[in-house]
Amino acid sequence: MSDLPVSPLAPVRFPDLPIIKGVRFATAEAGVKYQGRTDVMLALLDPGSVVAGVFTKSATRSANVLDCQSKIGSDSDAGAAIIVNSGNSNAFTGRAGDQSVKAICEAVSSATGLPSDRVFTSSTGVIGERLPHDRINAKIETLNASLDETAIFNAANAITTTDTFAKGSAAETVIDGKTVSIAGIAKGSGMIAPDMATMLVYIFTDAKITRADLQAMLSELNEGTFNSITVDSDTSTSDTLLLAATGTSGADVSANNLAFKSALHTVMLDLAHQVVRDGEGATKFVEVEVTSAASDADARTHALAIANSPLVKTAIAGEDPNWGRIVMAIGKSGAAADRDLLTIRFGVITVAENGWVSSTYSEDAGADYMKQQDLKITVDIGLGEGTSKVWTCDLTHQYITINADYRS
Amino acid sequence: MSDLPVSPLAPVRFPDLPIIKGVRFATAEAGVKYQGRTDVMLALLDPGSVVAGVFTKSATRSANVLDCQSKIGSDSDAGAAIIVNSGNSNAFTGRAGDQSVKAICEAVSSATGLPSDRVFTSSTGVIGERLPHDRINAKIETLNASLDETAIFNAANAITTTDTFAKGSAAETVIDGKTVSIAGIAKGSGMIAPDMATMLVYIFTDAKITRADLQAMLSELNEGTFNSITVDSDTSTSDTLLLAATGTSGADVSANNLAFKSALHTVMLDLAHQVVRDGEGATKFVEVEVTSAASDADARTHALAIANSPLVKTAIAGEDPNWGRIVMAIGKSGAAADRDLLTIRFGVITVAENGWVSSTYSEDAGADYMKQQDLKITVDIGLGEGTSKVWTCDLTHQYITINADYRS
Repeated sequence: MSDLPVSPLAPVRFPDLPIIKGVRFATAEAGVKYQGRTDVMLALLDPGSVVAGVFTKSATRSANVLDCQSKIGSDSDAGAAIIVNSGNSNAFTGRAGDQSVKAICEAVSSATGLPSDRVFTSSTGVIGERLPHDRINAKIETLNASLDETAIFNAANAITTTDTFAKGSAAETVIDGKTVSIAGIAKGSGMIAPDMATMLVYIFTDAKITRADLQAMLSELNEGTFNSITVDSDTSTSDTLLLAATGTSGADVSANNLAFKSALHTVMLDLAHQVVRDGEGATKFVEVEVTSAASDADARTHALAIANSPLVKTAIAGEDPNWGRIVMAIGKSGAAADRDLLTIRFGVITVAENGWVSSTYSEDAGADYMKQQDLKITVDIGLGEGTSKVWTCDLTHQYITINADYRS
Repeated sequence: MSDLPVSPLAPVRFPDLPIIKGVRFATAEAGVKYQGRTDVMLALLDPGSVVAGVFTKSATRSANVLDCQSKIGSDSDAGAAIIVNSGNSNAFTGRAGDQSVKAICEAVSSATGLPSDRVFTSSTGVIGERLPHDRINAKIETLNASLDETAIFNAANAITTTDTFAKGSAAETVIDGKTVSIAGIAKGSGMIAPDMATMLVYIFTDAKITRADLQAMLSELNEGTFNSITVDSDTSTSDTLLLAATGTSGADVSANNLAFKSALHTVMLDLAHQVVRDGEGATKFVEVEVTSAASDADARTHALAIANSPLVKTAIAGEDPNWGRIVMAIGKSGAAADRDLLTIRFGVITVAENGWVSSTYSEDAGADYMKQQDLKITVDIGLGEGTSKVWTCDLTHQYITINADYRS
């Protein structure tokens, strides 16, 4: 965890997460980089569990991501292990990086009895420095001996880097009279942008579902959640989201079960929003919604141009209702727009329409609105039916302070 | 001009610019927004002059830009006027914006005797507020009466907004025994990104050249100069570059005259670099060169991903040789790359190769290099023949301070 103050946008406290039968957690202080804190977590999934995943599309992704991707498509329900370290991302470490992943997987396999291809690894932290995997492997027997189904909060803490708070979320739904629970944890606060945001996310459910159905649901929901947040437009080499289903609730869930899908969406969106709320230096949480664009793709291009514009983000930091910069961002995005058809709103306040400031707009009302912590910017392009919603935060001095100093 | 300290990257002083026979300048204090400084400049081109131009591609470009674009293609050599105000960009001002441009053009036409379609206007400053064009028009007679062929430095000052120094550049070449001179001025320090950078640029030459040849040369040279700089990835609604040739040297110049083209390139590149050197809050001037990419387009995508990455730019601000962030930027760019084929250099120091830190690299050497004001980052992608070069600056606290407060 960062030694910076907790983000002003953080939830009041870490939520109570339900126990997911069939998954247990353990954490340890391996001293990969940090001292005096946990930096490794192991999650062990019982036989019968299936695992789905989505990963960064970076062309320079880490050895861990490449290894996870090679394993994730298997329809095995032999159980699985997820082992994560913070402090070193094992990215751009050449052959040595591949060897570290292999060594960790073999050590976990040896301790747990799982086949090596059911061990998923993630590493997060500094890029380009050799991962001292021996320090991790020295803790694996201890981790395996201390697994605990209630220890998910400890796991959420162990995976943090520059985060200022641990991130967790949960939902429950009843299917065929059986309660199905979902509990997830995440880390991430910088290098957050599609695709996908820079972060690690692990979600667990006791639903009984095939791997193929779980993967289909995850891939679909990922677009409107983790792939729709941006802190600084940068994308990490290590982004990983693993979703595991243990089946222990006994509730059968198909790919088109809307109750389960809705619950999973709630958890994914909540975790994605928490990542933005912990954006480096963030003091404002901003939803950008674009409507009536020529296409959904155009709407997304506009929304991301607004959400990633340094000039828009610094204006928000300064509580300046500078809608001219939103016009600028729309203009530069490359997607279709007509100056005279735009309507821009801050919350319910119409700021600009018909190619100019609205006759009903007052600068005082705009300035008052910008003082809120949670903001909504809506732009109606006036051309078609395309819509998109993305979430971001402001760009502050603290972002510069963190990133001009921290070697991440 | 900004009341901030002069950029540490500024040239020692404004250069001595040659007189271009056939063009005269005047400036005035119109009080458009600023008080106690000049904020309007008029440049008058004698009959026989031709004018070429390139403009922002923003979909929300200002009324002035739209008007200039409608006039620029004319092969008229009736002479021309260029009138520029600072303090208000007349962008996103609806019908009123169009009316302001028309009113200014008519006033200049009336004072100078030029047809209204030979009057080019630019406005720079705050977006979305009605341009008080009456204040400008009240000064036009005075401007017209005080035109002076030596007053280009005053013109360079009158067009500044958040600039910390006035920008000028010149070159001379001899063609058929006759000296041909080029003198240019520019403003711009924020909202700088392709296409094109946010700025106003006016370049004058006494070459004798057709409008078509002048336009072809300008458009070609623009790609590797003003379209290859970026301060903050944002693009203004007002970007305008006008290039006027008076013909008064008597030296005939064709589209393939390499001496003239080289001289023009020198002036354009120098002015483009000065705009980056005055980037808001800039303390480092950075050249990013990408070689051996799969194509020139891929090379440019990589180069801009590096140059626009907030994490790369903050690392440079912190003098941190954080090459891992360069790997990250290449990975996210979307252009082809292979982690294990990249070579990254800081100046002549090889930092990373073969998918990892170079065996010859020392962190001390990297850290020493980053202390310089002018930096060069070279990335060899190792895939093909594509190359690109772009220029940028670092991202500092001062950028946040300027943009969280200034309503531009």
